[in-house]
Formats: sequence, structure tokens, C-alpha cells
Amino acid sequence: MSAGRQQSGRLLTFEGGEGAGKSTQIAQLAEHLRASGYTVRTTREPGGTRLGEAIRAVLMGEYGAPMPAMSELLLMFAARAAHLAEVIEPALAAGEIVLCDRFTDASFAYQGAARGLGEGAVATLERLVQGERRPDGVLLLDLPVAEGLARAQKRGDGNRFDHETLAFHERVRESYLERARHAPTRYAVIDATAAPDAVAQSIVNAVQGWL
Amino acid sequence: MSAGRQQSGRLLTFEGGEGAGKSTQIAQLAEHLRASGYTVRTTREPGGTRLGEAIRAVLMGEYGAPMPAMSELLLMFAARAAHLAEVIEPALAAGEIVLCDRFTDASFAYQGAARGLGEGAVATLERLVQGERRPDGVLLLDLPVAEGLARAQKRGDGNRFDHETLAFHERVRESYLERARHAPTRYAVIDATAAPDAVAQSIVNAVQGWL
Repeated sequence: MSAGRQQSGRLLTFEGGEGAGKSTQIAQLAEHLRASGYTVRTTREPGGTRLGEAIRAVLMGEYGAPMPAMSELLLMFAARAAHLAEVIEPALAAGEIVLCDRFTDASFAYQGAARGLGEGAVATLERLVQGERRPDGVLLLDLPVAEGLARAQKRGDGNRFDHETLAFHERVRESYLERARHAPTRYAVIDATAAPDAVAQSIVNAVQGWL
Repeated sequence: MSAGRQQSGRLLTFEGGEGAGKSTQIAQLAEHLRASGYTVRTTREPGGTRLGEAIRAVLMGEYGAPMPAMSELLLMFAARAAHLAEVIEPALAAGEIVLCDRFTDASFAYQGAARGLGEGAVATLERLVQGERRPDGVLLLDLPVAEGLARAQKRGDGNRFDHETLAFHERVRESYLERARHAPTRYAVIDATAAPDAVAQSIVNAVQGWL
């Protein structure tokens, strides 16, 4: 990989359940790409903009009643619309590589599949908010649900999906794997149970094909 | 009007530009209907639930960049989904009359028309979030833009549409009137330049037809 080959921006997204190691791997890949001369932007969803962080705070809040799944989905896309307009599209237009911690595949997995809103509702919003914009590559860090949850618990980084059942997290994993099976050239399924350095190498191998 | 005729709930919404007098008229209609034996719920959008009020606060915030119109629209519908699930649908199921200060017509007028997102985007979200639910009657409090803005300014109730141009508010008004022309039995266009008591009487006359 050399900057000379960089013709236009690339949107690469990291997906996976809790404890899959996305943050660590994003930082390592960014370092690797920068050392190769690329301009790299790392960002995350929900969030990535001041509005997005305010929406993230709303998503994390407690309101005395369970948040309707549809509200959760619409909040995700409200943050995404700002993220695309203010961060992702300008960076891609400038030829940068954008590494994003979760993107629309997470909406399909968490709200579409695990919360049961269905693929159609998410696909409708994807068209409305993103037009034709899709990730150039999706790095799916896959590992068994129980192992991921144990890792996340050890790390102590609680989030609003902590109280969900194992079955919920199994639906998330299955949805991710299903989407990867349907578009194998755009998804790389990475075995996240491997040692971090081996995971990083698998990621670099996959990314080389997309640059 | 007597409670004996009340067969099922009714969703009646109040729409109109700034300074049209919606709050005053909602309070008066609620009082009138309660005196006639109806159970009445008054509520408002965006808001109406704890989550909705948190989203309203996000909508009112400043984020160093203009909020994308699509984010604004999605936040409105995220609040609406919770409002429907927690407040409006249960009240209607219990046979109550729900008086709502703004509803989806405002999304068509402000985000669809005035912000330029188009009717199609709003209609897509309306189907996704509301299914078949529509207001049984819409009370459109109409008055010339300049007069409404002067009233609102006098009252000192600033909001995030204060800095919009007159042309913006004209597009809002025209969109409301256009929607009313297309469904005259479901909309009552009320001359909001009339004296408050005369406005209240026109509203009562319109509501009688919907109960």
C-alpha cells in the first residue's frame, strides 16, 4: 500500500458485538495506514459530531419507560445524517480513508434484527439518509457472544445493551454474519478470538483489497 | 356535544405558524370539551414524553454547525414514535380526545416544504412511524406571516425558527394551506386574526363535526 495509489476516499467500517476489540483494531489500522502515507480519519457512531454526541447522550439516557425501538432507530439515523454531512462526505471528497466504529450494518443488526423492526424499515431509512452511500468495506470482528460479553464485562465499559439477553446478542451476531454472506466482496469476517496481532494482520490483508 | 355520543378516541391537532395562538385555543377547547363531559388529553410536539422532551432539548441546542434538515426531521419523528406509543395511542384506545399542539403536518410544512426536504421524505417517515394513524381533524390557525411573527416577538417566546427569513415562514404557511385544500373535510382553516373568542367559536364549530 502506498499513498501514490490512493485515487479517492474510502469508507471502511468496523462492526461486531460487544467486546470484539473494535477500538483497539481501529487505532492499529489507522497507525498502519498513516505510516503508509494515507490520510486517515477515525470516527464513531452514534456520535462523530457535536449533534451526534448529544444524540448519543439521549440514547444512553433513562426515561422511566423503555425507549421504543423505532425511536432508537430514528435517533441513530438522525446522528448519521449529521455525521455524513459534516464528517464522512467531506473527508471522502478530500480523498481520506475514513475508519468508522459502527455504521448502518449495526442498525440492521441491533434495531432491524435483534429489536425486531425488520430489514425493510432500516433499508428505507438507509435510502432516505444515505442515498447511494455505502461502506467500501466492512470489517466484521466476529466472536462467540459469551466470549465477547465476558471481555466487555472485564473491561467494565457498560452500555445500554448490557441488560439484553444472550438471545438478543445472538440475533445481532447472526444478522451481521448473514449480511456478510450476502456480499462477500464487501465484507471481511475476521476471527476476533485470535491474538490481537493476528487480528490486525487479517484486517490489513482485507483492507489491501479495498484500497 | 355530550359524552354519551363519544364512541372512540379522536386525535385533533392544532397547526399554524408562530404567534397563531395555538396554546390559548387548545386550553380553551379542552375546558369546553371537559365541561361537556369528555375526557381530554392535551399534549405537544416535539415533546409529550420524557424522551420527547430530551429530543426537544437537542433540537433547541447549538452545535457550532447548522443542523442538517434531515437530522431535524428524523429527531421529530423519533420523538413522535415515543409520543404515539406512550401517550397518543393509549389515550385514543381509552376513548379520550387528544388535543395535540403540532403533529405531522408541521413536519410537512417546516422540514418538507420550508427546509426543502420534499413531501416524499416526510410521507415515507409518516408511513414508517405512524402506519395508518392520521389526525381525525386538523385545526389550522392561519394568519399572515408578518402578523404572526410580530405577535410572537411581542410575547418574547423565542424558538429555533426565529432567525428564519420571511420567505421561510411564507413557505410554511403555503404548505399548510395547500394540505388543507387537498383534504377539506379533515382540515378546518381558522382565521386567527379574529378576536380570540371568535376563533374559539370557530374551533368549537369545526370540532363538532369530528366528534
